[in-house]
Amino acid sequence: MRVQLIGFGNIGQGLARVLLEKEKYLEKRHGLKLRVVSISDISGTVVDEEGVDLKRALEVVEREKKIIGYPGEEMSGLEAIKTVDAEVVIEVTPSNIKTGEPGLSHMLAAMKRGKHVVTSNKGPLALEFKKLKETAEKKGVAFRFEASVGGAMPLVNLATEMLSGDEIYAIEGILNGTTNYILSRMTKEESPLELVLREAQELGIAETDPSYDIDGVDTASKLVILANAIMGVDASYRDVKIQGIRKITPEAIKLAKEDGYVIKLVGEVKNSHLEVAPRLVPVNHPLNVDGVLNVALLRADIAGDITIVGKGAGARETNSAILSDVISIWKNGACL
Amino acid sequence: MRVQLIGFGNIGQGLARVLLEKEKYLEKRHGLKLRVVSISDISGTVVDEEGVDLKRALEVVEREKKIIGYPGEEMSGLEAIKTVDAEVVIEVTPSNIKTGEPGLSHMLAAMKRGKHVVTSNKGPLALEFKKLKETAEKKGVAFRFEASVGGAMPLVNLATEMLSGDEIYAIEGILNGTTNYILSRMTKEESPLELVLREAQELGIAETDPSYDIDGVDTASKLVILANAIMGVDASYRDVKIQGIRKITPEAIKLAKEDGYVIKLVGEVKNSHLEVAPRLVPVNHPLNVDGVLNVALLRADIAGDITIVGKGAGARETNSAILSDVISIWKNGACL
Repeated sequence: MRVQLIGFGNIGQGLARVLLEKEKYLEKRHGLKLRVVSISDISGTVVDEEGVDLKRALEVVEREKKIIGYPGEEMSGLEAIKTVDAEVVIEVTPSNIKTGEPGLSHMLAAMKRGKHVVTSNKGPLALEFKKLKETAEKKGVAFRFEASVGGAMPLVNLATEMLSGDEIYAIEGILNGTTNYILSRMTKEESPLELVLREAQELGIAETDPSYDIDGVDTASKLVILANAIMGVDASYRDVKIQGIRKITPEAIKLAKEDGYVIKLVGEVKNSHLEVAPRLVPVNHPLNVDGVLNVALLRADIAGDITIVGKGAGARETNSAILSDVISIWKNGACL
Repeated sequence: MRVQLIGFGNIGQGLARVLLEKEKYLEKRHGLKLRVVSISDISGTVVDEEGVDLKRALEVVEREKKIIGYPGEEMSGLEAIKTVDAEVVIEVTPSNIKTGEPGLSHMLAAMKRGKHVVTSNKGPLALEFKKLKETAEKKGVAFRFEASVGGAMPLVNLATEMLSGDEIYAIEGILNGTTNYILSRMTKEESPLELVLREAQELGIAETDPSYDIDGVDTASKLVILANAIMGVDASYRDVKIQGIRKITPEAIKLAKEDGYVIKLVGEVKNSHLEVAPRLVPVNHPLNVDGVLNVALLRADIAGDITIVGKGAGARETNSAILSDVISIWKNGACL
């Protein structure tokens, strides 16, 4: 199966590493021989119909900070999608919650050319889920995005495929590892947000501009994807009521603690209402997970409550989800 | 799709109720029209090629405590499997960990006749997993058993289908709700086992003969199924080192508590070694779940640790897993 990789930052490089490591396993276990026929980043595209040398590509990007500079071509990702033959496009460019670009154009272009799409890119899905879903259906291609929510947690596929007899009537989750790390440390140390945030930035857990995380933007994007994909709600990012964690004080956390609660940034969808806000969670509640972990609680009408906990981010962990989506396409393709 | 229901106790009746409730949903969402063409219990079999009237069957069993007595026939479940036309056999007779019967014969007979098998019956799988798996493969039929472990938790399918790029190198879990309920209450109240057990028996949470639960037999059966199905270990129930919770005292629990631990009955498989034993679990560890909940921690080589928590039992909840397995067969059948 030929795949194109669009985006060669953390996630894309992580995928290259995982593919090198898992080459034999994929062939032995699933009969799947993956060939990455092109890799694009903002600088250009490397194309090799026999399969790009992933080890060499990783060396080049390590040295040059871009993929071109090694037998490359001045070709954009969009151009590569339009001209290079492949069955699957893996879209892992940086997420943009304002325009969804360039991911949105990449995905639509791939679908229109009959290519399956696998992505970790939240922005386009949080803005244009319905359009993407409908385009994929019209073109008869797969559209899979497990990696866009909860990193390594197989949340979307769990709900849609493993709980296929159930209706999910509500979802609650801690979907952002950075804020969860900050709140966990504030709880343990009774320190103010600014202090913990600064240390998280030094550790590389928080970004230099932390607003994406601590103002709830990231959580809201993921919540929109879950609501659309799992509950069939037709919602966009603009529909989410959002409150971040900037106003949480050590005093509030201390008071909560004395009553047996912790404060968590929770995203919830219920009755088509989407909300992100700090919430009091009982200490022994399944949603009370520590550190950078993510958690989601699915309320299912037959199964009852199902909680899943896992690593919400990480260049390696996220690729578990991408790989599983690719394998699923391969397996379904075998019976098309 | 025509299904035969073998076993009409708690789980079987629960399935009939869920099917009545979900009839429209299954057709609308999955295009699946299920027809239960026979229902067998120890007293005989009701057959109707147009579909057994499930509402009436439930009324009869409620009144007569057996399925026959309403236009039934003196036909055993095994005979029904051999003679009635159907695509799927749902085997939900009582589990027997010594012989695996009658479930084992039912499943093998169904497979040999080219019928797919869905089951919640642990015994046959804990004793003869390999034989069942190989027979299913030889006959080209599906063999699905999500309901046999962890009730509503979609654990087996999660690991084998959603984490398909990962290798699971260890599994730890609390797989028996009764012992977990007893230990949780002993922890909360510092009461001795005998007292809590007696109350659990009165509440119907523990059986009159509690050894199946508290001596670890049930946990061990489930662990064997997970090891075989998820990790490809060729193990049988006899290979598990088992220690139950009879010797746990309120004093031991109190000491653990003072150090920030709880005592849980944990099943673990690692390096082909299967063991069930009471273990110290840190209070804030994902395995520390309360009451009748079940939990499993999968250690995956790419995704990292994934924890899933859900209801481990219940006539309704378990049927979430059975239904999801049936839907999966239906969907795969569409492309055979």
